This record gives sequence, structure tokens and C-alpha cells, in this order.
Amino acid sequence: MLSSWLVGLSVGMCKSLFEKYVMSTLVNRLDSRQADFNQRLDQLLAWESVSDARVAGVVGDILGQVKSRGDAAVLEYTNRFDRRSAQTMADLVVAPEQLHAALDNISPEQRQALQVAAERIRQYHQHQLQNSWRYTEADGTVLGQQISAMERVGLYVPGGKASYPSSVLMNAIPAKVAGVDELTMVVPAPDGEISPMVLAAAAIAGVDRVITIGGAQAVAALAYGTETITKVDKIVGPGNIYVATAKRAVFGQVAIDMIAGPSEILVICDGETDPDWIAMDLFSQAEHDEQAQAILLCPNADYLDKVEASIAKLLPTLQRNDIASSSLKNRGALILVKDIADAIALSNRIAPEHLELSVTDPEALLPQIRHAGAIFMGRHTPEALGDYCAGPNHVLPTSGTARFSSPLGVYDFQKRSSIIMCSPAGASELAKTASVLARGEYLEAHARSAEYRIIK
Amino acid sequence: MLSSWLVGLSVGMCKSLFEKYVMSTLVNRLDSRQADFNQRLDQLLAWESVSDARVAGVVGDILGQVKSRGDAAVLEYTNRFDRRSAQTMADLVVAPEQLHAALDNISPEQRQALQVAAERIRQYHQHQLQNSWRYTEADGTVLGQQISAMERVGLYVPGGKASYPSSVLMNAIPAKVAGVDELTMVVPAPDGEISPMVLAAAAIAGVDRVITIGGAQAVAALAYGTETITKVDKIVGPGNIYVATAKRAVFGQVAIDMIAGPSEILVICDGETDPDWIAMDLFSQAEHDEQAQAILLCPNADYLDKVEASIAKLLPTLQRNDIASSSLKNRGALILVKDIADAIALSNRIAPEHLELSVTDPEALLPQIRHAGAIFMGRHTPEALGDYCAGPNHVLPTSGTARFSSPLGVYDFQKRSSIIMCSPAGASELAKTASVLARGEYLEAHARSAEYRIIK
Repeated sequence: MLSSWLVGLSVGMCKSLFEKYVMSTLVNRLDSRQADFNQRLDQLLAWESVSDARVAGVVGDILGQVKSRGDAAVLEYTNRFDRRSAQTMADLVVAPEQLHAALDNISPEQRQALQVAAERIRQYHQHQLQNSWRYTEADGTVLGQQISAMERVGLYVPGGKASYPSSVLMNAIPAKVAGVDELTMVVPAPDGEISPMVLAAAAIAGVDRVITIGGAQAVAALAYGTETITKVDKIVGPGNIYVATAKRAVFGQVAIDMIAGPSEILVICDGETDPDWIAMDLFSQAEHDEQAQAILLCPNADYLDKVEASIAKLLPTLQRNDIASSSLKNRGALILVKDIADAIALSNRIAPEHLELSVTDPEALLPQIRHAGAIFMGRHTPEALGDYCAGPNHVLPTSGTARFSSPLGVYDFQKRSSIIMCSPAGASELAKTASVLARGEYLEAHARSAEYRIIK
Repeated sequence: MLSSWLVGLSVGMCKSLFEKYVMSTLVNRLDSRQADFNQRLDQLLAWESVSDARVAGVVGDILGQVKSRGDAAVLEYTNRFDRRSAQTMADLVVAPEQLHAALDNISPEQRQALQVAAERIRQYHQHQLQNSWRYTEADGTVLGQQISAMERVGLYVPGGKASYPSSVLMNAIPAKVAGVDELTMVVPAPDGEISPMVLAAAAIAGVDRVITIGGAQAVAALAYGTETITKVDKIVGPGNIYVATAKRAVFGQVAIDMIAGPSEILVICDGETDPDWIAMDLFSQAEHDEQAQAILLCPNADYLDKVEASIAKLLPTLQRNDIASSSLKNRGALILVKDIADAIALSNRIAPEHLELSVTDPEALLPQIRHAGAIFMGRHTPEALGDYCAGPNHVLPTSGTARFSSPLGVYDFQKRSSIIMCSPAGASELAKTASVLARGEYLEAHARSAEYRIIK
């Protein structure tokens, strides 16, 4: 008996230690009532982009070479880095026929999926179009804003494994809906290889020109222009550290979109959604890369255990099981919260890129959400639908920047000019106020320019 | 006769040379038909912001100190750079009573001018407020965007001579119209001196808190937060090279507004406006600083001569005659164009910050203007009215960035969250498309997360 109890105890202890070990290696468990909670959460959230002096040096050289030598430099870098043997830039341009051939050559199922997604993305983004406006005051003075599209935009698309057709749709369609005249897509083709799905997506999205160049040299060509590539007004699209560093360096000369950090999802669940669904929703973020972050908030500890069991069960079945495991272990968390209000407060503090409200009545929570890139409402709205085809953009503010940034949209490809047309009577009145303020700022010519318009 | 002719010739030559010399020292004259025109124009437009390694080093140290030591560092820098003797941060906070006292103490004329300007700016900017929107699809799926204000914004106001009350109104009012919860203004008070007009403008604009700190230390305090200053989401407002360098460095951690280059005006005139008016409009830009740029385009050479004569006549009467002269001589130009269409084409190439259409029918030209920060239409709309009180913002894209940037506006203090709420039927359909695309991108967990929502 005694020995048997001792054996039982020892097995029990081992099991408990083993479980604890397995648990901690699977995904972090936190409790918002714990004394060290804020500290642990901050550690999990901490992420700083690496600024690498060596990369900055390489990129600086490439930018300088392309700025001064144009096409010749772009050709050299492309032949070297992508193992190409192009003689002229023309060899790197994808002919319109090739784009349409790609569309014909992918499977009918894939073609239809791309077309359905593109059409939904187009419809949604048309709601974002902003129109010029003006109003006329009693004295005839007209005020307003003229809103117009940018002329030329460059779209960077990564090559190889990270070459996502969905990303082509999400970046290109808002630009074309805005009315951008010329949308140039650059995509590296290492060893001459390029994804037919990416070319097909470019054809569907209405990209005007595709050039198979990449890296900092492609960013430089778009930002400065070369003999064959016209300087653009804005560069959008994701890229590796060289691309991101180059975009940051040319920012100001041209506009750029955000420089994204790792992707994140925050799920708030009331404990009533199938735990397998939630586990898979967390995986859909965690499988992106090891730095991706998936967090679940729930006021029900038993439910968190169930999700953890689902994770344990389903994780080994994933194709990208290594990446997802690593992401969940290092940056993922199942967090026990006091109640849904506590969850909302935490969510507003985190300002997540993707927020899933997997609850019965998501509408009731919506007005309390202050900061999130995209809000996925209800158990039937997993992030994956938004990533591909629901309609809204999948380019979203990461790392808490939803506090001050928005999803990529048509508005990112439009700009505004103020309109001021004073009637003589209106100008005469305004000039009196302007004169006083200008003299208060010791800007006499401003005052006198205004005063000329005062009707005596 | 001969000798007299020779004398005449020689006097004539001297006069011509003298005039040419005077002309060239007053303002540049160009002709768009000249062979070297594009080259000369590019030289005039060329302007690159100075990035100074020494400044970057100083700013980097200050940012690091404030990040790690908070208030203590801010206090030390402020006492040192602004010659203050503050013991605690509380000594640097302007009490609400002081703000209101400033409003009482300025002249009634100035108070009224600030109030009129503020009210007009507020009215105009209310037209920019963007509202949340959504639509419901046939299967019950809801899509839209929730638009909300940023929580906390920091407004930088320079001290000393460059401390402009109009700038306080133009930056603060759009933020408050957007609904920003807490607007903190920082303004250095060298030797404890601060402009009563600036404090009065802050009171009128509804600034929530004023702290008399400046430089990179103020930017750092806003970006990182300290014991007494809460971290903000966005920093706006102009500043010297230290402030601009600090803003660029914290960009990403917080949002920033544009980093402005020198101010510019481009006037297109049909030759029918009083030349004194146009000369003074050019001065109102040129008096800002020596790098400011004032350019006039006109198809009538005689009219350009008249404007040059007005410049020669009026320039000596200006208080800021030295600065204006220098600006006109180095960066100003009177340009003879072929016709108004030629002027419009040049304007679109320059993408000016301020564009004056001093013509009989400015409406006819407006649709052809593609890039400009603000468009001042008609002879009775000088830029100075827009700088102070017409209503539109005076914070505008400089140095050709109107190709891709907009005037500061309410939209700069709002941000968007995508809304996606799929009905079970809608999710089931979308999931089929998402699944195909996700598998095409080798993101299996995305596919499986979507597939769980397919109704069997």
C-alpha cells in the first residue's frame, strides 16, 4: 500500500511536472489577476525592428548606384542577386501577353478564387472613394477640397515563398479604385522563376506594368526613376529587411506605406466557440513566421484548458507545425481575464492588428473597441476570410500602431488640395483679420498683401 | 557726332549692363522657351534637407536620456538649453488660469482676430470629419469601417520669433474637431519668456495642457512618455533641425506629421492683376526665410517687367527687406511662359505648396491642376488670407510633395478599423474561396480555419 501510494505519488508528481513542462513549451498561460501580469504581457508584446548597420550600408550603396547610374546599376544588381543574365531592362519586363497567359495557365479553381476575391475587394474599396467637396459662404466666398488620385504608384511584391497573390490584389486594387494612372509592380524572379498565381493576380488587379526586379535596387528605381522606369509618387508592399530599409531611406522623396512588424491576432472569446476553431484561428496567425503573435483572452479557465488541448491535438497535424509551434511557444498566450470588460480593456491597450470577437453578441462590444486594425465579429468570422476575400484590406497596422494607423485603403492613393476662392467682399473682410494676425507675427508683407484686398 | 554716339553707346551699354546686373540681383528671370530653361528651373527648385551627423548624434543622446531617465532628463535639458531654473516638471506646466489670463491680456483687436480665425478654421475642418460606414450583403454579412479619433496628440510649437499663434490654431483645431481626447502642447520658453498670443491661441483652440519644454527633449517626452507626461499617439507641429531630427527618429513609435521644407508660392497670372498686388503676394512668401521660394508665371513679358518694377519699388519698404531680397535673388523667379496651358503644365511639374491663380476665370483652370497643397483662386485671394483665417489649413506639403501629400486635416487625427461580420451562410461561401487561395500560398492553417466555417 505504502509503496504503491509512493509509486502513485511519484507518478502523479512526474505527470504534473511533465504537463507543466509540456504546457509551457506549447503556449504561454497568463492570468490578468496575477501580480506580475503586466510585466509578463509587456515582455510578450515587446518587439523592436532590427536596424542593422551592415544592411543600412549595403542599401545605401545600392541606392546611390541606382541614383547615379540608373538602369545599368539595376541590371547589374539583378543579374548578381537573382542569378539572371539580362542584357537590357527590356529583358526584365513581363509582357502583357505573359500576364494573360499566366491567368490562362493556372487551374480554373484558382482563377475563379482570385476573381471572386478581386471583385469583393474592389466592391468594398469603392466605398472608400472620397470626393471633392466645396461650400459657398453668404458673401460668395468658396471653400473646399479637390481630391485626386496619385499619378504613379510602385508596388513591391516579394519573390520566392513569400510571393503572395493575395497581397498583389490587396495592394493593387485600392490604387486602381483610387484612379492611379500607372501602377508598376516589381517582383524579383530568382533564377528567372516567378509565381504564375502572382502574375495572374496582377492581370486581374489591373497592374499596368510588371518588372522582374527586387531588393533595394527595385525600390531605388521606383523612387528615383531610371532611363526605363518612371519615378513613382508612392511605393507600397511588403519586403525583406533590405526592402524595408530602402523604403525608409527614400521616404520623403516619395511616399511609402507602413513598415510592418510581425503579424498578430488577438481573440476575445466568451468560451462558447468550438475550441478547435479557436485553436486553428490562432494557428492561422502563428504559421506565418516565428515572430508572429497569437493571443486568446477568455474569462473561463476551463475553456482555456480546452483550447490548449485542441492546440496540443491539432498542432502536430499542421504542415507548418515547426513555425507555428515556435511562434506559440515564444510569443503566443492564452490569458485568463476577469470578464469581457477586462478583455476589451486589454485589447485597447494592445491595439492588435487583427481582433476576433468570438462571442454571441459582438455588436455589443464594438463601440468599446478603440484601437484595432480589423475587427472580425462573431464565431463565423475567422481572420482567414479577411486575409483573402471578405473585401477589406489585409494590409493592417501592426505592433500597436493601430493607435494611429489605418488599414491600407483607397485614401492612401488619393491626395487633397485646399480650394479657396474669395469674393471681393469676402476678401475685404478676411483681410482685416489676416492683417491683425500677420502684424502680430511680425510678417508685414503678409499683412500688406491682405490689406491690398480691403475695399476702401 | 561720332564721339557723342560713342558716348551714347557706351552709356547705353552701361545702362543695359547695370540693369541686367540689378535685375539679376533682384529676382531671376526665365523664359520657358529658352534651351536651358529646364536645367535652370531644376536648379532653382533644388532643395535638399540637410541631414547633419552632429545634430543626429546630439538628438540621439537626448532621446536616449529621456527614454531612460524621464522627467529628470527633461528638466536638466530644459534648464540648460532654455536657461530655466525649474525644480520639478510642475514648474514647467502652464496653469489653465495662465492660459485664460493671456487671453484677457492681449489687445481686444488681437483677441477678436484670433477668435474669428479659430471659428472659421473650425467650421471648415468640420467638413472633413469622416464617419464610420457599413453595408450589409444579401446573405447578412456586414462590412464597413469604424472611424475614431486618436486618444492623445502632442503639438510642438517653436519658441522665440518663430512662435506663431496662427500655427497653434492650424494644428490644434483639426485635432480637437477629430475628437482627440488629450492634446498636449509643448513650447519652449527661453529665459521663461513665452508669447501671450501663443498662449491665447492655445486657450481658444482648446489645447488641454501646455508644458514649457522644447527641442528634442520635448519630442522624446511626448514619444516615450515620462512620469508626468503621458506618451502620445502622434506628434505634429513645426520645429528647428533638432526637433525635425527627433521627430524622424521617433517616427514609427508614434505617428508624426510631415517634415516640412521651405515654404513656396507659385503664382499664375494672366497679366491683368495690379502688379503691386502680385509683388506683395510674392513677398509674403519671400519674407518667411531666405530659403523660401516665390515664383510668378505669366505669358506677358511686359507684365513681368511691371511686376519687377513693383518689386524694385516695394522691396525697400519692407520690414523684412533683407530676408525677402535674399529669397527672391536666390530662389525667386519671374518666368515668361508660352501661354496659360504652359503655366499649368509647369505648375503640375512643380507641385507647389501654394498656388495662386490670379486670372479672370480660375474655375476654368481648376480641373487641370493635378498637384498643389492649396489653390488660391482669383485676384482677391492672396495666400495671406489662407495663412490666417480663410478656414483651410496652412500646414501644407512642400518641395513637390503635393504629388502625394495633403494639407493637415481632421483625417490626420482619425484612424480606421475594418469591420467584418460574416453571417454563417456568408462565411460558408467565403471560406471556399479563402481555402483555395490559402492552399495556393501554402498557408494550410489559414485554409483549415476557413474550412471549419463551411456548412456541410
